[in-house]
Amino acid sequence: MLILNQKEIWSALSVEEALAAIEEAFLLFEAGDFHMPNRMHAHHGDNTLLLMPCFTDQFFGTKLVSVNPENPKRNRPSIYGSMILNDGQNGEPLALINGAALTAFRTGAVGGIGIKYTTPESADSLGIIGTGMQGFTQALFACKVRPIKALYVFDMQQEKVNEFIAKLHIELPNVELKTCNSNRELVEKSQIIITATTSKQAVIPEDRDLLKGKHFIGIGSYKPDMHEFPEQLYPLLDTLYVDTPFAKEESGDIATPLKNGLITDNQIIPISKLIKSKQKIKPETSLFKSVGMALFDLIIAREIYRKAINLNIGTKIEI
Amino acid sequence: MLILNQKEIWSALSVEEALAAIEEAFLLFEAGDFHMPNRMHAHHGDNTLLLMPCFTDQFFGTKLVSVNPENPKRNRPSIYGSMILNDGQNGEPLALINGAALTAFRTGAVGGIGIKYTTPESADSLGIIGTGMQGFTQALFACKVRPIKALYVFDMQQEKVNEFIAKLHIELPNVELKTCNSNRELVEKSQIIITATTSKQAVIPEDRDLLKGKHFIGIGSYKPDMHEFPEQLYPLLDTLYVDTPFAKEESGDIATPLKNGLITDNQIIPISKLIKSKQKIKPETSLFKSVGMALFDLIIAREIYRKAINLNIGTKIEI
Repeated sequence: MLILNQKEIWSALSVEEALAAIEEAFLLFEAGDFHMPNRMHAHHGDNTLLLMPCFTDQFFGTKLVSVNPENPKRNRPSIYGSMILNDGQNGEPLALINGAALTAFRTGAVGGIGIKYTTPESADSLGIIGTGMQGFTQALFACKVRPIKALYVFDMQQEKVNEFIAKLHIELPNVELKTCNSNRELVEKSQIIITATTSKQAVIPEDRDLLKGKHFIGIGSYKPDMHEFPEQLYPLLDTLYVDTPFAKEESGDIATPLKNGLITDNQIIPISKLIKSKQKIKPETSLFKSVGMALFDLIIAREIYRKAINLNIGTKIEI
Repeated sequence: MLILNQKEIWSALSVEEALAAIEEAFLLFEAGDFHMPNRMHAHHGDNTLLLMPCFTDQFFGTKLVSVNPENPKRNRPSIYGSMILNDGQNGEPLALINGAALTAFRTGAVGGIGIKYTTPESADSLGIIGTGMQGFTQALFACKVRPIKALYVFDMQQEKVNEFIAKLHIELPNVELKTCNSNRELVEKSQIIITATTSKQAVIPEDRDLLKGKHFIGIGSYKPDMHEFPEQLYPLLDTLYVDTPFAKEESGDIATPLKNGLITDNQIIPISKLIKSKQKIKPETSLFKSVGMALFDLIIAREIYRKAINLNIGTKIEI
């Protein structure tokens, strides 16, 4: 069995390879060539455990994610994860992969694909709201997909921004990195805006004129009571792209405007349809909303595993 | 994170310590001090994947078991497993333990506890039907719980018996190990009989006089269409002991006689009640039926982990 930690995930697979793997996952999704049971939720005390299995013919895998909102107080990450990858023919466990790092990595790639299909190719300014692990990988993937020159950062917790920018500077030495004093300033200056918070209220101003012509990528809201986008955004959209139709139930950024009549069900389209038809769209204002799914974890884990074997990365153990 | 393989499981925890841990698990079960969601089943092609989470306050864990009935044709085990043990306070993954070996080990201990509470202390003859991994560990645990002098072995596949006995002789050099030519001969010679097959028909003769006064431990049947015991056994029983009330639905050895009126629901008692009351019972004829549950995996995994840390056993990896 091969054990792969966070550093080894990034050594094994390039950003370009991860983007290609996620594009393949979207095509599998569109073709139905997979089996993804409903994720299982279990709760005990402060911990929530999510079990996310997914099958294809050649591989299957299960991501186990535990979420504990009290952890930051203990100076620990709120999310831990373990991904077990198995051979699809005989079930043998092939790899254990750090599931929190895998999640950030694949979510970065999903955001990158969202940018590739729903934003102008020439967009060179990017705003990131939320300076956690997700915001960081979103920035890295976005800068591979678009020729970003200036990257603006905003977080309610100002002290986190400097650390975030310092870390990002190491990875993106040629991108101008700037702190914003408000979310308004960030939206004004950015063509593409990625939100990666767990906020319950909009982290973007309620200002239709400001929002018009901007391209939004929603990463953070994964529960019905979480909202990152303002109500005034929705009437500006022809179509709202999602990574999976489950987003309609899972994220408040879709469930709430649907309920309130700000968008209609037939405006919500899985982005896999664009990818399959190789359609280039040019909406004036756009929103791509991701909530993630086990199929992404499986396909990225498979690629990381294959590459790690070839490159002799990771720790091999007899189990 | 600590990785523990089959050999390390056996080095970390003695048979006596495993028996004590399972007895503790039964007391937790009786007290309700745990949370055990229904196991999740997923199917794809030849593979079945079972996800078995369980929580206590100090630890939680998930056993992932894949079953592939075509594997023996490919010279592979039909069952693979992975157990992830997490810290109960913050969710951090602490250990990855070989799940197939853990299952055999904890099931051996459950069978041992069944023997301790439902068979005569002086019983010195044991019969094992079924020569797989389960039969092997059942034999090892049974010989620690009772002063076994003679151990009889029967399997429909005669060629497997010699290999089984050779392996067992290394572990039990002072026990007389004998092959039987029929299941009848085995039952005649044994006071305690353990069945560890996946048979759909009884592996014990339909002969009331033969069965009377014998003590049966049922390990193999874990689905409603699997049966190891003959109909004539049930009228000889006052009480039928089970490791969990779920056995009534899961195993054909209970579901079928219940349906056919050979036993009644109130005759079926969780063995945890005996353990809690420290009751010694002396039935003339007895049956203890085990189907297993995630709580056993969790408590045994916890003990293996604690001991392995103390004894510096296993492979430590940064993940």
